[in-house]
Amino acid sequence: MATVRLWTDDEAQADPAVRAVFDDIRRVRKSNFINNFWRALANDAVALKRTWESLKAVMAGEGALDPLTRELIYIAVSTANGCSYCIHSHTAAAKQKGMTEAQHMHLLAIIGMASVTNNLATAMQVPVDREFLVDE
Amino acid sequence: MATVRLWTDDEAQADPAVRAVFDDIRRVRKSNFINNFWRALANDAVALKRTWESLKAVMAGEGALDPLTRELIYIAVSTANGCSYCIHSHTAAAKQKGMTEAQHMHLLAIIGMASVTNNLATAMQVPVDREFLVDE
Amino acid sequence: MATVRLWTDDEAQADPAVRAVFDDIRRVRKSNFINNFWRALANDAVALKRTWESLKAVMAGEGALDPLTRELIYIAVSTANGCSYCIHSHTAAAKQKGMTEAQHMHLLAIIGMASVTNNLATAMQVPVDREFLVDE
Amino acid sequence: MATVRLWTDDEAQADPAVRAVFDDIRRVRKSNFINNFWRALANDAVALKRTWESLKAVMAGEGALDPLTRELIYIAVSTANGCSYCIHSHTAAAKQKGMTEAQHMHLLAIIGMASVTNNLATAMQVPVDREFLVDE
Amino acid sequence: MATVRLWTDDEAQADPAVRAVFDDIRRVRKSNFINNFWRALANDAVALKRTWESLKAVMAGEGALDPLTRELIYIAVSTANGCSYCIHSHTAAAKQKGMTEAQHMHLLAIIGMASVTNNLATAMQVPVDREFLVDE
Amino acid sequence: MATVRLWTDDEAQADPAVRAVFDDIRRVRKSNFINNFWRALANDAVALKRTWESLKAVMAGEGALDPLTRELIYIAVSTANGCSYCIHSHTAAAKQKGMTEAQHMHLLAIIGMASVTNNLATAMQVPVDREFLVDE
Repeated sequence: MATVRLWTDDEAQADPAVRAVFDDIRRVRKSNFINNFWRALANDAVALKRTWESLKAVMAGEGALDPLTRELIYIAVSTANGCSYCIHSHTAAAKQKGMTEAQHMHLLAIIGMASVTNNLATAMQVPVDREFLVDE
Repeated sequence: MATVRLWTDDEAQADPAVRAVFDDIRRVRKSNFINNFWRALANDAVALKRTWESLKAVMAGEGALDPLTRELIYIAVSTANGCSYCIHSHTAAAKQKGMTEAQHMHLLAIIGMASVTNNLATAMQVPVDREFLVDE
Repeated sequence: MATVRLWTDDEAQADPAVRAVFDDIRRVRKSNFINNFWRALANDAVALKRTWESLKAVMAGEGALDPLTRELIYIAVSTANGCSYCIHSHTAAAKQKGMTEAQHMHLLAIIGMASVTNNLATAMQVPVDREFLVDE
Repeated sequence: MATVRLWTDDEAQADPAVRAVFDDIRRVRKSNFINNFWRALANDAVALKRTWESLKAVMAGEGALDPLTRELIYIAVSTANGCSYCIHSHTAAAKQKGMTEAQHMHLLAIIGMASVTNNLATAMQVPVDREFLVDE
Repeated sequence: MATVRLWTDDEAQADPAVRAVFDDIRRVRKSNFINNFWRALANDAVALKRTWESLKAVMAGEGALDPLTRELIYIAVSTANGCSYCIHSHTAAAKQKGMTEAQHMHLLAIIGMASVTNNLATAMQVPVDREFLVDE
Repeated sequence: MATVRLWTDDEAQADPAVRAVFDDIRRVRKSNFINNFWRALANDAVALKRTWESLKAVMAGEGALDPLTRELIYIAVSTANGCSYCIHSHTAAAKQKGMTEAQHMHLLAIIGMASVTNNLATAMQVPVDREFLVDE
């Protein structure tokens, strides 16, 4: 189904660069499960490491936003981009980080609301109010 | 610049349906400022009322997510949809609700991160892991 | 497959708020069939009611555009947004409202044509002609 | 502002391939005005001719949909694709073909409605109902 | 699954306009295989011919870019537009034209990189540097 | 105009983390010019470094695709994502790396062609041919 090969654990084990990233994913996530996204990206060990290091910093590292809020934002972007895989994986991640059903449904309501006003503002080509511009 | 006319305060004052919505926006926001989006949508008083009532419920009403988190999600969707007007207006709203510069930059990092993995997952057509599917 | 639970008729029957909306959908559509979109949205009875009331007003209420034209526009937006579910449901709705195969294929030709000129205009960053701007 | 050069009438006049297309645009549209999109595309005379011939066939030729409906669909796609230039040019074209303000605002309401249900259906990953699938 | 009927070889054979295009596809591609996209588009013989003639000119005709580069660009656009069908068909075409696994993975890295900076530039509403504007 | 502050050279000079990245950009590009994207991203020194390091690796490092092809792909994605800033900056970069006008116009023709078939395939929900699926 994928346009690239999904690496098995045996293959990852045999490639030091891929194994190092898979090991770190398991360590950070405290789980043995490696999802298909990383098994697909393993075809490019450099991109695998770069993407994982960036994701780890942004989603699991220090930061001004709490872990659940990060996942809500991730789901919002993935929805607007229409990435089915990412919606599934980050909805699962958000639930694991404590997203309640009420929070999930509120998230969806905001995504829906933003989509309608985004398209109305675009269709009407509304000029930005001077009040919204940064003063510099 | 807009594809529709932007209503002035005098025009809004003269139309009971539009005036009622503008008055409610001012009441809820505790501000006399009516931004251009509503002045453009005033060309359809029914859509104006419906959109405002929905926005008020989702963004200002009771809900499982706090007011700032709602704005962060709104900015994320507006960015993915490329709505310049909405990015400006909701970044301003988020700042007004207390978004710090660190939170703003963390938000951007998450939007960026989601965009890259969204596109990689799509380009590789990664199949959804069974572990992510809801059990029903 | 969905990221939320799909409500059965028995569950909807047991929840007064959901039941009221499902009953109204059946009444307006003159059909007993409730499609999955509403069964998914039933997880948030307030959003269910708000979305249905808006949809009913825009798609089934009084308006300047006829019912079939409304569906053609809906399919066009759903295609540009890449919503597989919505393309299927609104193509079915359009056929039910009398869309002929020739109209369907003409719609697709326009969607295709708009997509190509949209992307060319964007890639070339063509400045808007003064003749197109609203005079005010 | 554009990423390519916009051809003047003098330049177009001096190039037989470009002149032929500009002449045909003027003939079909019964107007001397050539908008910037074509002046930009003139940098590739083959693409200019191909795009104009396709547009002429789809938008001005015989077809199952009437001229105004075609423009409404074009605006809808251009909005979802966020093409500012195209929104301006096709809103102007639709007005010229008789679009009333009420039709314009109804169009916007449908675009907004489609956008919200598109995103909700995507975020919930609603499975397509069997009833919507073509029987073959 | 499709919203239109997919034409069989027998049906295409019986319709001179469709048959002519199918024959030309086979001739140009030096293969008997007609993929589903054309079988779906066959429902509109005029659009079938117009789309194929354009595709043939742009992808198989004379041009400043080599055949493999053309396919890489096609995959990039199809990914950003989220077209699953097109990602599959053009990834297959690119492999047939010699795309190595290293080239495929480099392509994906660029698509990912562009997506992140696209969204960051949009979210920050970065003004275009004067140095980037064409001098005319 | 931007939603964040654009850093001046003096400010960058005063912040060691930002200065280090700006110095490296100048070194790699062999130019003193720092474009606004980096001046905006400087508000988050960690994201600035991470984004620049990734961009440098993907666009300026070793790789299976040549520098000009990389820029063509970047423009294609930026167009499909509607990022005006990125279209301007990468069109300028591509010209600097030798993109001829003929290559530029061929690129645009491919972007346009992909957009039309993307939308047609999506609107028709064409099922992926078995021949396109990777055999594993």
